[in-house]
Amino acid sequence: MYTNNQHLMKVKDRDVLLHFGLATAKDNFEDMFGDVKFVCSGGSMNRMKSLAALISKELNISSELCNLCSTDRYVLYKVGPVLTVSHGMGMPSTTIMLHEIIKLLQYAKCKDVKFFRIGTCGGLSLEPGTLIVTGTAVDYKFEPVFEQQILGKIVSTSTTFDKDLAKELLLCKDDSEKFEMVIGNTMSTNDFYEGQARLDGAFCDYTEEDKMKYLHAAYDAGVKNIEMEALCIASMMNRAGMSAAVLCVSLLDRLKGDEAATSTKDLNDWQKRPLTIVTRYIKSKLEK
Amino acid sequence: MYTNNQHLMKVKDRDVLLHFGLATAKDNFEDMFGDVKFVCSGGSMNRMKSLAALISKELNISSELCNLCSTDRYVLYKVGPVLTVSHGMGMPSTTIMLHEIIKLLQYAKCKDVKFFRIGTCGGLSLEPGTLIVTGTAVDYKFEPVFEQQILGKIVSTSTTFDKDLAKELLLCKDDSEKFEMVIGNTMSTNDFYEGQARLDGAFCDYTEEDKMKYLHAAYDAGVKNIEMEALCIASMMNRAGMSAAVLCVSLLDRLKGDEAATSTKDLNDWQKRPLTIVTRYIKSKLEK
Repeated sequence: MYTNNQHLMKVKDRDVLLHFGLATAKDNFEDMFGDVKFVCSGGSMNRMKSLAALISKELNISSELCNLCSTDRYVLYKVGPVLTVSHGMGMPSTTIMLHEIIKLLQYAKCKDVKFFRIGTCGGLSLEPGTLIVTGTAVDYKFEPVFEQQILGKIVSTSTTFDKDLAKELLLCKDDSEKFEMVIGNTMSTNDFYEGQARLDGAFCDYTEEDKMKYLHAAYDAGVKNIEMEALCIASMMNRAGMSAAVLCVSLLDRLKGDEAATSTKDLNDWQKRPLTIVTRYIKSKLEK
Repeated sequence: MYTNNQHLMKVKDRDVLLHFGLATAKDNFEDMFGDVKFVCSGGSMNRMKSLAALISKELNISSELCNLCSTDRYVLYKVGPVLTVSHGMGMPSTTIMLHEIIKLLQYAKCKDVKFFRIGTCGGLSLEPGTLIVTGTAVDYKFEPVFEQQILGKIVSTSTTFDKDLAKELLLCKDDSEKFEMVIGNTMSTNDFYEGQARLDGAFCDYTEEDKMKYLHAAYDAGVKNIEMEALCIASMMNRAGMSAAVLCVSLLDRLKGDEAATSTKDLNDWQKRPLTIVTRYIKSKLEK
């Protein structure tokens, strides 16, 4: 059981997953999704399609890639026991997807599902290209809580991830692969520019010194990387009792600048790293 | 001048609008965008393409619709003096777009640009299909402030919209059109389910009574409709000194339920209403 929301029991035969364009009255969720064991998510729609293609190849499952999402809000692909789903940018977009994917898995009666977010980030004092697996997600004050605004009040939930899963993922890196992979705390923000102390947004009412002080304080508090979604994923997956991991490749060292200074080819290669690790993890689990 | 960020002066010849895939070093912003007078934005990529097509037809500008955004994060279409750009769902996704669109307009040396968000919402005690133009955007506590998390602190900015523009838009409705159009306060939330007091998310730790109490309190505080972006648009457009308006059509009365109970045809027709009004406004301005 991923949710014990009693209100859903009343509407489960006529529930609409509005942003996916799926509905229990017209779609047989058990037939469509009953065998799902892994959900992989990322911001970019294209990357989720590429991941589905990679998984199809690696798992040797020939399937025509068909987007099961009938709206243009997200994309949703299924390859054997793996779903790939986009989440857009930021936590509000991600929570909508999570609410609907948790309901989808519940209605499909899936069990023991693992959830992965695959993305990019800015690192703190890490070589660009490093892959960071989130140990604990923290907010803008470096606190391990997701503060939701519900009925006019703040409701806080904890944001630790499954430590065993993170360690298992670390073991999926091949020694021949020439990049670092570490477990560390991830700060999730609500904006890419001012929220991440960049100087190059449309607005910037702080100095470069203020910026560096904040980023160093984050580093001193144990933050290894900065992105925009891990916090709500940890919170909601904890509430659902689902094991989850966030793997992000760092495109730049934020202690050295605001923009990635690497060739497009390198950036594209780096972005494949979390996809490769997660695919290898899934393959190893299915071969057992 | 839409921004006086001094840091940008240093990087303006090599600035990258990362999420649009545009860069001042390779794209001539003045040539490409110098004549822009109106920016229309909405969550859905498809709707922004439809809007560009509608404007092309209504303004009698024959143009092949070409997405100028080279990433899959947003879409960006230009039809004469009008840009249409998607913003995804939620304020973090929207602020990224706004930072980059403000920089784009600044680099292109545009002047007197007006900004519109066109979307859908839930109404409070309004007939579904009603079009609401936001007077003031408010947060989950019904306060007219956008609280940004910057360098570990909360920075609050005001969220009123241009009242004259809102009134002008109201005059664009034709008397023969059989729907209501009102100016009212809009509440922007960070989640569609728990954040908007819905009972049908994956989780719901409150009762139907709690929900109704909160929605009635919102109504009593002057909130006419609920969506997920107006608050940050008001704040950032105020900071930029750009005139802006948010027009959302209500798909349901939240005091009566959580899901729209209308035919797909009606929903599709209703969603055209804000597009029609904004197109008519733009046409009237260009004919002067």
